[in-house]
Amino acid sequence: MSWAGLKKAASRAGTQFSQKIGQVERTDDSAFTHEAARYKELEKNGNALHKEAKAYLDAVRSVSASSTRIATTIDMFFGTDSGEQAISANAYKRAVEELEGDIARTIDAPYRATVLEPIGKMCAHFPEVNNAIAKRQKKLLDYDAARSKSKKLGEKANADPITLRAAETEEEQAREIFQALDGHLREELPQLLDLRVPYLEPSFECMIRLQSHFATDGYNKLGGVQRYFADGVREDYASGALDAQVEGALQEMRELSICGLSA
Amino acid sequence: MSWAGLKKAASRAGTQFSQKIGQVERTDDSAFTHEAARYKELEKNGNALHKEAKAYLDAVRSVSASSTRIATTIDMFFGTDSGEQAISANAYKRAVEELEGDIARTIDAPYRATVLEPIGKMCAHFPEVNNAIAKRQKKLLDYDAARSKSKKLGEKANADPITLRAAETEEEQAREIFQALDGHLREELPQLLDLRVPYLEPSFECMIRLQSHFATDGYNKLGGVQRYFADGVREDYASGALDAQVEGALQEMRELSICGLSA
Repeated sequence: MSWAGLKKAASRAGTQFSQKIGQVERTDDSAFTHEAARYKELEKNGNALHKEAKAYLDAVRSVSASSTRIATTIDMFFGTDSGEQAISANAYKRAVEELEGDIARTIDAPYRATVLEPIGKMCAHFPEVNNAIAKRQKKLLDYDAARSKSKKLGEKANADPITLRAAETEEEQAREIFQALDGHLREELPQLLDLRVPYLEPSFECMIRLQSHFATDGYNKLGGVQRYFADGVREDYASGALDAQVEGALQEMRELSICGLSA
Repeated sequence: MSWAGLKKAASRAGTQFSQKIGQVERTDDSAFTHEAARYKELEKNGNALHKEAKAYLDAVRSVSASSTRIATTIDMFFGTDSGEQAISANAYKRAVEELEGDIARTIDAPYRATVLEPIGKMCAHFPEVNNAIAKRQKKLLDYDAARSKSKKLGEKANADPITLRAAETEEEQAREIFQALDGHLREELPQLLDLRVPYLEPSFECMIRLQSHFATDGYNKLGGVQRYFADGVREDYASGALDAQVEGALQEMRELSICGLSA
């Protein structure tokens, strides 16, 4: 902060203190405060949406990447075997690799272009709006201070006319600067709020379509792998017969004396 | 390590050094080394699969959780609006909340029970097997040392028969201990390797079914939300008309003078 900036900040802090103890009259700002609070809500939701939309894409990438890694490992597990398992493991590997390619091509890039980037662009405006609101607040304090100064001088019986005139001019200038900023913000904050719906609507639609596409793609590709399994497996699974198969193999492992050999 | 353990470790280190410089004959161990390497591959793949299978479940949970958070935020965005957007945002919110419940109930718990836990149980055996392999290696060094000692004594013309007899007994005992461990491991490591396929097969099938179920669920639920959008949107999106809508709204935002006010 420059020396001039520091002096201004110190003077405004003095004005705020004087307002608190009632020595300087405060402009009634409740209408603007209401608009600013609505904007703050937009800012909070906008930034949250941007963060969550990124988290969604990361999660989809992670579903895809972990499936591919699982498939590669499963393929190595069953790979030396030439039975049905090796065939289904290989079919699964091909399916998730295709899925990963599809996701990169038809989900990842369009999602960034139609969801993340537009929301990001909207969020990029927030710091400027915040600066404008902060600047208006400073100019409001300057105006309150100048008005209070000229009012006190005016109430003095023996005030120097030149000093009084200078104080009145200062008040007038401070009022003009404040009112210009205030007018812009009061007019445009509601416009910005109203724009959120037409602006976000296409991104919202694209997001749902892409989420739906992600699900459909998985549905088609993984459905294809399921036919490599015996029809009865679904019933086996439901009836607990698969659990029994797992338990049986686990029991055989336990019965290997290796596990007692290290004692 | 106990004093006795420390002495054993120091003696085995001496044996290994003597083998390196050719003073103590080494048992040919290549057949076992081959089996042990195959087992190490199983261990590596098993642990990798366990880690990757966990990562997949975390990613699915994250897709579900981030969708729900997005829906809640979008609902707040459009919520004050009573138009079509608010209706579709609400439909989306309900769909992803149902999806989240479904995932917790019909994917998360069964995936842990049929995929993560069986793989985890298999991996839990690996440390025991590793201990057995390490113990066999120590007993092999003891046997090599005892054999070398008794052989050197036997080659001496003036060896004390009592000392020689004691060394031969020691060799015999070391050989028996080693061969018992060695026999078990040679017999059982291949059995353990063969068990991997019947053991992992049900988990593999369940995993594909649950991944497929996750996709189908999303497909059904999100498909239902899409009907809230105008039929033309898909074509609008394809033709770039939606991009134009986003660009238009963005341009309007840029034209708000707020963004220049803070300068």
